[in-house]
Amino acid sequence: MAFNIIALLSPKPGMIDRVEELLKETAIAVKANEPGTLKYQIHRETKGDAPAIIMLEMYKDRASLQAHGTSEDFKNLERAFKKEELLASPMKVLFTKESGGFPSKL
Amino acid sequence: MAFNIIALLSPKPGMIDRVEELLKETAIAVKANEPGTLKYQIHRETKGDAPAIIMLEMYKDRASLQAHGTSEDFKNLERAFKKEELLASPMKVLFTKESGGFPSKL
Repeated sequence: MAFNIIALLSPKPGMIDRVEELLKETAIAVKANEPGTLKYQIHRETKGDAPAIIMLEMYKDRASLQAHGTSEDFKNLERAFKKEELLASPMKVLFTKESGGFPSKL
Repeated sequence: MAFNIIALLSPKPGMIDRVEELLKETAIAVKANEPGTLKYQIHRETKGDAPAIIMLEMYKDRASLQAHGTSEDFKNLERAFKKEELLASPMKVLFTKESGGFPSKL
């Protein structure tokens, strides 16, 4: 059964553009190579001195998340975060499910 | 121009069901009464000892957010959070914009 992940990333000051760039590159590979990654959307905080990146992700099933987490593209992303010292703290991952409200009036 | 809010709520242990219930009631009123609130979606964390609620919201413009924040329904929600002592810490609100990736393959 499909489930969601909300990942919170805290780039170091001045590093958000580079973090976003890497995530955009990763998203292109994810879209092309991971049929079970149903959503991989980058949100960028627009206020504050240390803006965060929030990833809204959806996976078809557990195997799809595993495929993403063990993909070469995701490993490259993690390596770049580490090598370039881009994050102020480790990525925080929340497993979530939609439980009400409404998704869109558009 | 439309913009997003991601709100992080931290219910006290055992209080998440009540927080969710109040948000669902609020969402019904929001959908009926706030034409500028374009999205008001409740996500519930599925893991951990102190699961969070994450609200994914979209507003048509600043006036729409102001209409939401000053509505009787939102004020009632805040009053209930306070009166029933439901939250472990104040709600954290992130203003965000979509900046890449893909929203859905479905």
